[in-house]
Formats: sequence, C-alpha cells, structure tokens
Amino acid sequence: MNYSMVRYVLFRLLRVMGWLMILPLIVALIYREYDSALSFLALAVISNVVGLLGSLKKPANRVIYAKEGFAITAVAWLVMSAIGAIPFVITGTIPNYIDALFETISGFTTTGGSILTSVGFIEKSVQFWRTFTHWIGGMGVLVFLLAVVPMADGYSMHLMRAESPGPVVGKIVPKVKDTAKILYTIYFGITVLEATLLFISGLPLYDAITISFSTVGTGGFAVRDSGMGDYSTLSQAIIIVFMMLCGVNFTVYYFLLRGKPKEAFAIDEVKYYFGIIFLAAGIVTVNIYRAGVLADPKMAFHHSLFSVVSIMTTTGFGTLNFDEWPMLSKLILVCLSCVGACAGSTGGGFKVSRALIIIRNARNELNFMVHPKAIKRVYMDGHSVSGTTVKSVTAYLGIYVITFMTSTLLVSLDNFDFQTTVTSVVATLNNIGPGLGMVGPVGNYSEFSYLSKIVLMFDMLAGRLELLPLYVILKPKTWKRGYNY
Amino acid sequence: MNYSMVRYVLFRLLRVMGWLMILPLIVALIYREYDSALSFLALAVISNVVGLLGSLKKPANRVIYAKEGFAITAVAWLVMSAIGAIPFVITGTIPNYIDALFETISGFTTTGGSILTSVGFIEKSVQFWRTFTHWIGGMGVLVFLLAVVPMADGYSMHLMRAESPGPVVGKIVPKVKDTAKILYTIYFGITVLEATLLFISGLPLYDAITISFSTVGTGGFAVRDSGMGDYSTLSQAIIIVFMMLCGVNFTVYYFLLRGKPKEAFAIDEVKYYFGIIFLAAGIVTVNIYRAGVLADPKMAFHHSLFSVVSIMTTTGFGTLNFDEWPMLSKLILVCLSCVGACAGSTGGGFKVSRALIIIRNARNELNFMVHPKAIKRVYMDGHSVSGTTVKSVTAYLGIYVITFMTSTLLVSLDNFDFQTTVTSVVATLNNIGPGLGMVGPVGNYSEFSYLSKIVLMFDMLAGRLELLPLYVILKPKTWKRGYNY
Repeated sequence: MNYSMVRYVLFRLLRVMGWLMILPLIVALIYREYDSALSFLALAVISNVVGLLGSLKKPANRVIYAKEGFAITAVAWLVMSAIGAIPFVITGTIPNYIDALFETISGFTTTGGSILTSVGFIEKSVQFWRTFTHWIGGMGVLVFLLAVVPMADGYSMHLMRAESPGPVVGKIVPKVKDTAKILYTIYFGITVLEATLLFISGLPLYDAITISFSTVGTGGFAVRDSGMGDYSTLSQAIIIVFMMLCGVNFTVYYFLLRGKPKEAFAIDEVKYYFGIIFLAAGIVTVNIYRAGVLADPKMAFHHSLFSVVSIMTTTGFGTLNFDEWPMLSKLILVCLSCVGACAGSTGGGFKVSRALIIIRNARNELNFMVHPKAIKRVYMDGHSVSGTTVKSVTAYLGIYVITFMTSTLLVSLDNFDFQTTVTSVVATLNNIGPGLGMVGPVGNYSEFSYLSKIVLMFDMLAGRLELLPLYVILKPKTWKRGYNY
Repeated sequence: MNYSMVRYVLFRLLRVMGWLMILPLIVALIYREYDSALSFLALAVISNVVGLLGSLKKPANRVIYAKEGFAITAVAWLVMSAIGAIPFVITGTIPNYIDALFETISGFTTTGGSILTSVGFIEKSVQFWRTFTHWIGGMGVLVFLLAVVPMADGYSMHLMRAESPGPVVGKIVPKVKDTAKILYTIYFGITVLEATLLFISGLPLYDAITISFSTVGTGGFAVRDSGMGDYSTLSQAIIIVFMMLCGVNFTVYYFLLRGKPKEAFAIDEVKYYFGIIFLAAGIVTVNIYRAGVLADPKMAFHHSLFSVVSIMTTTGFGTLNFDEWPMLSKLILVCLSCVGACAGSTGGGFKVSRALIIIRNARNELNFMVHPKAIKRVYMDGHSVSGTTVKSVTAYLGIYVITFMTSTLLVSLDNFDFQTTVTSVVATLNNIGPGLGMVGPVGNYSEFSYLSKIVLMFDMLAGRLELLPLYVILKPKTWKRGYNY
C-alpha cells in the first residue's frame, strides 16, 4: 500500500470539500441564515487549511495500482461522508451524528433515503447542501479531483475505474484528466439546462436548482414534504426527461457532442434501457388504470412513467405513493430497482449492461448444454465480450446476492415486516431511496436501529462503489506496507 | 431429435407407472376402499398395456445425446405428472384436474406444497399414493428406469445427468445401470429403516410408512392436518435425523458401505451442509427463545432444529408455525430454502456445492481485482474445479435469478401481499412447500389463480430438474428431426 499517495489524495479531497462548502455558505448569506453561514464558513476554512497543510508534501512515489485505487476510493467516500455530515449536526438539523451520517451517505451515494420524517422545516442552506451532496456524488468526487488536480495519468485510471459504475470503465479520450473534464462539463451543462427549464416551467429558482441537483445525480432528496407531487405536470415531465437522460451512459453525450450519433445509438445497453422503461411503464399504466388508481389514462401513463423512470434510474422521486398500487406494479418497480440504470451514468443498481451479459451468458450456457460443441461467446454492441469481463460480471452477481442476503438477515433483527426488511436493503443497495412498506415513498428510515442503519449505510456505499472497493478495504492484507502483488 | 428413442423411453416409463400403482391398489384393498381400488387397478392395467404396446418396437438407433437426455427427462416428468394426477380426480379427492396436477407435480418434485385445505378426509389409498409420489420423485423415476430397463450404457448417462441434482453428476461405479441400482438400494434401505424406527417410536404403521416416503424423498406431504405436530418428540427427532440424512449426497453412503469413511467425510459440501444446519439452528433457537415463542430452551432447540433441517433439506414438514416467529428466524429459513441441500441428494434448492462455488469464485474475483496477477481457481474437496463447471454454476445463478423474477411478476397478478407472492415462488422453485404468509406452514396454495398455479408448477419442475431440461424443451430447435449439433 502506497500510504503517502493515500494521504495525498485524501488531503486534496479535503480541500475540494472545503471549496464545495462555499456554495451553501453563499445560499445561507442570501437567505440570511447567519448561524448556518458561520458553520459553513468555519468548515470551509478548516477543511481548506487542513487539506492544504496535509497535501503540502507531495508523494515521491506516485505509482498506484488497482488495490490502491479501490482502497483510496473507499476511504475517500468514508472521509467525505464523515465531513459532509457535520453541517447537519452543527446546524441542529439532525442532532444525532449517526443519523446525520446516514443522511449524508444517502446523499453522496445518490440513494435519497432519508431518516427525516419531514423536510419542510430545514433551513434553505442546509437543504441546499443536502441536495448538493447528490450532485457531488453523482458523477463522483474523485472524478472531479482527477479533473482539477494534477496527477500521474497512467495511474489515475485506477481511481476512475473504482469510482465509475459499470462492468467496463473506459476513457473517452486518451487522457484521464481530459475524460474527467469532459464528463464534468457535460454533467454541469445538463444541470444548468434542467434548472433553467424547471424555472421556466414555473418552479421557484431555489427549487429549480436543488431539484436539478437531485435529478442529475439521480439522488432523490426532495425539498418539500410532498416530494414532486406539488409541481405542475409540465415540471414533472421535465424531471422525467432529465432523470431518463442521467440514467444513460454519459459516453453517449460525448458522441452526440462530437457529431457521431451513429456511435451513440449503437450501444445495446442504451437501447434496452429505453426499451425496458417504456415496456414497464406500459404495463404499470394498464395495471394501475384497471385497478382504478387513476381514472384518466393519460395521467395513469404520466405517473407510471414518472415512477418507472424514477426507480429504474435509481433516483427515487415520487409523485404518487406507489406503495398503494397493485402488487404487479410494485414488484415491477422492485425488479427495476435491481436492474438499475446504464453503466457510466449517475444511476445505481446492477446496471443494464451487466443484466444483459448475465442473460446472454445464461442463454449461451443453455445452448452449450444442448450442443456441447457450440461456441460460448457473449456479444455486446456487435463485439464479443472478453471472458474476463463475463467472469467478473457473473462473480459480481454472486457478491451482490451474498451482500443482499447478509444485509437482509442483519436488518431483520429489527423485526419489521418482510416487505420493509427486504425492500429497505433493495432500496439502499441499489441507491434508490424508497422501498415498500415502512420505507415506501411516504415513509422513511428513522425507525431503524443503529445496527440496521450502519448495515444500510454500508449497502449504500457498496452499491454506489459497486461492492469491490468496500470489500477491498475490509481485507487486512490490503493495508500491508510496501508492494505485494 | 431421436424421436423413436423418446417414444421408447416414455412408453417404458408408462409401464413402470403401471407397476407402481399396484402399491396403492394393495393399500386400497387392505382398507376396503373398493372404489379407489378399482380406479388404481384400471390405471395400472391401462398404463401397463399401453406401455407394453408402445414399447414393443425397439428403436433401431439408441444413440442419445445431451439434448435428448434433457428433452426426454422433461417430457417424462410432464407425462408422469399428467398420469399421476388421474387417481386424485377419479377418486373425487381433487375433482379439478389442474389442481390435481398441481398436487401431483408438487408430489413428484418433492415440493410438498398442497392445494388442499385439509388432508384428514383423504382415503388411505389416495393418501398413500400422494406420499408415494414423493418417494418416486425423490431419487428420480428415470434413475429407476435405468436400474431396471436394459439400455445402451454409453448414452443413458445423459438421462441420469438430466435428472440428478448438482453441478457435476458422476457415476459411482463405471456402469450407469449399476450406479442406479446402488442408489435405489441405499434409498430403499433408508426408507425401511426410517419406517421401522418410526413404528417402534409409536407411530401407527400407516403413518410410519407414508411419513417415511415423504421424509426420504424430502417431500413434505403430511397425512394429518396437524403436520408433524401430533407425533411425539422422539418421533420428531427420528424424522429430523432422516431428513438430515437424505439431504446429504448419496455418494457418502456408498463410500460408508464400502468401508471408506475417509472419502465420505472429505466432501466439502457435506461439512458445510452440517455446519450451516447447526449454525442456523443455534441462531434460531436463541432468537425464538428470547422472543418468548417457547419457554423451554430444549424445546426451542428441538423445534428450531426441526424447522431448519426441514427447510434446508427442502422437505417442508412443520411442527410449529414458523410464520409466527421473529423476522430474523423467518428470513434465515427463507435464505436456507434458497441454498437447499447437497448435490446428489433427494433435496432441492440451489445446492450447497453451487453456493460454495459461487462464494469461492466471488472471493477469487475480489482477489483478482486487487492483485491482477493472482491465479483464479476455485477449489473443492482439495481439487481445483474446472473452469467449465464454474462457468456453468455462475450461469445457473443467472438463470435461477431470471426464473425467480419472472415467476414473481406473473404470480403478483393475483395481487396477494408481498410476502406471499415472493415466498410462494421461493417455496416452489426450491421444492420446499411452505413459504410465509398465505403459503406459510398452516396455509396452502388453494387460493391462487390458474395462471399462478401453472407458473408455480413450472417452477416446481424447473427446481427439481434444475432449470435446464425445461428450457431445453421450450426451444423449437430441440424438436428438429435428425441430428444437429
């Protein structure tokens, strides 16, 4: 383990955190929340000074391998959450630190599950910070770091790979730094575009900006107790479009910007992503319309599409309480949570591309059993997927199932009902936010014990970082000095 | 597809079915149930005559490949279930044929989930047939056929492989016919031993025999409405031991009989199987004792062990209604259902050996991500598992998850609660019988719609035949004439 590099990256991260807190500070000043302003100012200054002092000495050896990449990423997310929780505590919004940590991890991991029973009372600046965590976590803070901090390019890829979702993480352009800059530019552009459109559609500027953070990061924190229910159908439609866009692999936008629509739309994952969304929305529409949930078929489609997109992209916004819908619709949403969004998007879940690889591999295996001489190759986007990727995806499914089962057993100690127990893990491990029952769209995570909250925090981080980094830092061998490969 | 061979095996199977119906016929005569006796007699004669006529012409070409093996097995199980359901209908026990088919498939697949709300009223001979289906299905009817019918040895292995559970099916001795005979001899011996011990422990002879059928086949049909609750603690303890024994790979008994205990106990799967049982029983004991379900710790352990063994071996007998236990205990049981028993046993589920391969493969993958030069090999019983086996096991997990999700969505159309919907699929796909909620230990499957019943029948067969055969017969290509490999 290259400890000096770990230290360096962490202190650089601390500085970035310091700078990021300037934004809620400005909001606090605008809304005259001077106590909060002071808190954010103090935190910003301390983070910056400590970060600066700690990163003064540059590491002599900047070589990091996959192991360091995973470890740094996991530790960075833990440190960042630990610091991000402080504003909630010192402003008195969430006095209990464990609860504040839950809320922060839920924010950074873009889960959006809350321990708050009401969000209406929260100060504007703290509310801003709460939704801003979604935006920071959506594209990834290390990707941000890579964009702004000079690092040895050959090794920084390990950091990007550990933080970015999907079975295969590639660079868009040869340099990691440039890739990170392109990604953040697109991300920033989409956010500004959504906020503008929402503002034009009638939302107050504050709502437009915060809801854009939550949408673009596919997070799900709302700033009103009614969730998205208060906003006009037009505003909701805009939110649908932007949730959908942010569940797509961001490479698509790069191709589009470079005038290569053919490359952009040749991606299998994206086609299936939209296919699943509209198929699921269609079935849910018919199901809730026939069950009499909504009398107007157009509104049934609107709310079905909203819920399906919200869950599939792992955002977790709600317009209606889908926990009251028929079981088929509820289970479709639970299944969609597990599938999740596209690799390389800001969404969570298992990822459409992984699901495709699993399905195609299963089909091949069936063929192989019947025709032992058949060639077993999995194709994606017209190319054959390497055996290593297929192996790592199938192993990922194993780790996913094991994590899911273990978490469910631990959460069951709270003795809540079956539905709540199971879907609380589904909703956190896939970074959705709402599940069914007690953690449904109108529920929250406040009633869980500390043990369950810790398990669910682990699941949120495991889901966002795609399991491996968290397990890597749990292995004692990872922390041995020197190189051992 | 070698159609003449398919025809030949199916008609031979019909004859075997004819002979097997002699047993309930005798029971009917003993208990003077003359109407039922006539039914069984007629069925026995017709099956035998039709079977004889159909199998007069021996196929010129006895070559069967893996594809035929899977197809014959799947079709054989469908035909056998279709015929096995007739006694329930013509004796008036279950007048509706779909329901009778559900009961029969539940019997043959050793699931043990019933559509009957009460079993107390059933005639002795029909009750006998009902539990006897467990015994026939437990070891497999084609394995039986292989033991008694002369077949080309080189190809019959495909039949054995398709019907026997586990990731790798091997012959115990060089000849398939001898392997089948040895397996059935051990199976028969265990059954006689259990019936004798149960009889000595105080059970009526009829109960001793029928319960032995259900235990040894790891089925779960009871002959009383109280399940196993009426029997003495001693009898229940005997049942625990025999359930546990029948969840073990039968190769172990062969090694023991041959005086090779070292080989028998060197099997990783068996060690983990017992380890999981006692660990789970320990946790459940503490959990239900502390929750005040039982005041006596000894009885808490007794009933915990009974339930854990009953579920892990996928038998599904009940002494207490575990649906009333705390959520942790219930979820442990649900997780155990999914793991299931050992490969090569009469139990269902995913199988301990597959779970071990998944876990070890996942661990390797984690290692590989951290140390890209690490060698990825999965070890079992001290040997490295072939890459093909690991691949097929990981693909199996994929097929399993896809089957599970699809079934759950279809069953959810009935709009029962989340717990009932999910666990009805868990309980059938893993051949357990009882789930939670409406299908809990004191519930049954009578309320489901025909669609759900058909889906659950598919799941029971898919679980017993380990998914592949059923998917193979659904592929149109399988049914093309001639050879195409």
